[in-house]
Amino acid sequence: MTYQYDVAGLGNAIVDVIASGDDEFLRKHNIAKGVMTLIDDFRADQLYRALPEVVEIAGGSAANTMAGLASLGGKGLFVGKVKADRLGRSFAESLNTLGVRYTTAMADGGAPTACCLIVVTPDGHRSMNTYLGASREIAPDDIHKGEIAAAQVLYIEGYLWDAPEAKAAIRKAMEAARRAGRKIAFTLSDPFCVARWRDEFRELLSGLDILFANEEEAKALFETDDFDASLQALRDWSGIAALTRSEKGCVIARGGEVHVLDAVPVAQVIDTTGAGDQFAAGFLYGFTHSFDLAHCGRLGALAAAEVIAHYGARPETSLKGLAAEAGLL
Amino acid sequence: MTYQYDVAGLGNAIVDVIASGDDEFLRKHNIAKGVMTLIDDFRADQLYRALPEVVEIAGGSAANTMAGLASLGGKGLFVGKVKADRLGRSFAESLNTLGVRYTTAMADGGAPTACCLIVVTPDGHRSMNTYLGASREIAPDDIHKGEIAAAQVLYIEGYLWDAPEAKAAIRKAMEAARRAGRKIAFTLSDPFCVARWRDEFRELLSGLDILFANEEEAKALFETDDFDASLQALRDWSGIAALTRSEKGCVIARGGEVHVLDAVPVAQVIDTTGAGDQFAAGFLYGFTHSFDLAHCGRLGALAAAEVIAHYGARPETSLKGLAAEAGLL
Repeated sequence: MTYQYDVAGLGNAIVDVIASGDDEFLRKHNIAKGVMTLIDDFRADQLYRALPEVVEIAGGSAANTMAGLASLGGKGLFVGKVKADRLGRSFAESLNTLGVRYTTAMADGGAPTACCLIVVTPDGHRSMNTYLGASREIAPDDIHKGEIAAAQVLYIEGYLWDAPEAKAAIRKAMEAARRAGRKIAFTLSDPFCVARWRDEFRELLSGLDILFANEEEAKALFETDDFDASLQALRDWSGIAALTRSEKGCVIARGGEVHVLDAVPVAQVIDTTGAGDQFAAGFLYGFTHSFDLAHCGRLGALAAAEVIAHYGARPETSLKGLAAEAGLL
Repeated sequence: MTYQYDVAGLGNAIVDVIASGDDEFLRKHNIAKGVMTLIDDFRADQLYRALPEVVEIAGGSAANTMAGLASLGGKGLFVGKVKADRLGRSFAESLNTLGVRYTTAMADGGAPTACCLIVVTPDGHRSMNTYLGASREIAPDDIHKGEIAAAQVLYIEGYLWDAPEAKAAIRKAMEAARRAGRKIAFTLSDPFCVARWRDEFRELLSGLDILFANEEEAKALFETDDFDASLQALRDWSGIAALTRSEKGCVIARGGEVHVLDAVPVAQVIDTTGAGDQFAAGFLYGFTHSFDLAHCGRLGALAAAEVIAHYGARPETSLKGLAAEAGLL
């Protein structure tokens, strides 16, 4: 069977707005150094005005994954909400340029497009201020059943769970995928997100085919401080668990089929932002092209290695080319 | 069922003879720096005389494992050959002091007791010269079926495979263990040893219950440069594979039951000699005391962490105490 899309990614539609600034700038504008802070519209507007020369780069976890999938030659659809403002158009254009299909209707009113205002200090730290805006307003009406059914895999970002409207949209998308006999993949996104929604995420498992989690997220899901305990819990589950462990590599488990794969060496780790997003991109490309689980994991590791070797969360080098060089395609 | 011994270890009986020396000393005596060289009796005698003040410590891979087992409170028997000379008596005394039962008849004639002449240079490198002597002369007559049957597990060192007489002794011990319904464990010892005996070791697998290997040895066994490929080959095997990966921890697999366990952190790695021997000690203690596989692996990791934090291949701190502190006993 052929599909119009390999993967439909559902997630927050965010534009990263990056500026340079020193510690004095952070102090003056009350920005917590080196961490991610959620901010409201008033604060976002205030900070945005205060930032000197900025670079804008489309981001968002699942959107980054779709960008990686496209870099591998895969066909992706992204579903996420922006407003029809300057940043929203910029977000849409970035996906179109990469060849990722993006059809979600832009909001005419309401909150502005989500942005992550990032100040990079001379010491390399990134201080992030995230305003979720329009992204949280994705609603069931934004989910088109036919589009979801046209993708072999529906991939959902756990971060979305924080918005009640978004949760209803996710449920609708999952239902559409299930009815069409498609596979459903989910990423736990963040250990704090898991802590907030642990019970719901664990209930959700029975409806999933693939779970992406890094070590901390997997431990948080099962309230353990022992990686192997979370692995054993997921071996008892019916789906495929793709567990990433930074420099320790990854473990892919489908019941008794367990693969322990090494990380791809990187000369120098520059910025780990997007490692999980790109791992998912590589894995899902492999999965939707009928590769075996170990091969999927290796594609994931390769994509993650590319993105941590430079600043930013999307690939700068063709992943298709890198994968071919590595003998994986 | 209770057993007289938890484990019967079969291996080379070697005394380490350690001296300090500088690079000039190495050059003068033609000693290859930082590696292990097999030497003959003439060279052993010559070097032994040349070494300044020496420290003698009983060693040997399986004997070290029995020392670790004793340190955990386990009951061990060691089977290995020495000559009734000064080093031979010293070897026997070291095991007796630790509470490891050692009854193999000392040879009256023939080659002297095996020794490993080690020169430690001021930069911390260990240059090893191993003379196997009497150790290689272990023969079927040295195997007492009743003793083997009295141990819950027979543990065999792969290094022994190099001597034809020893191989016949191993076969006899395995036969005795099998007839008595005991478990048989084997360590691959060394990637070069695996390369020499790959086909025989792979045939041997069908008669084994537990296989210990580090990553390099496991890869050598299946002629792959990919750890996961060796893991998949061993998942298809009927026994328990205990695979150690240095700082990456270990993987324990029994078919579809796969555990991925972290290494126990060590403030400073001083000397990795004996890490595999002590891992086996911890694992076998757990196995013979009915712990689950993950628990066995954790005991192994704990014992390995103790021994790499100091010079020498046997524990200096009570492993029983450390395991109790760690909540593993």
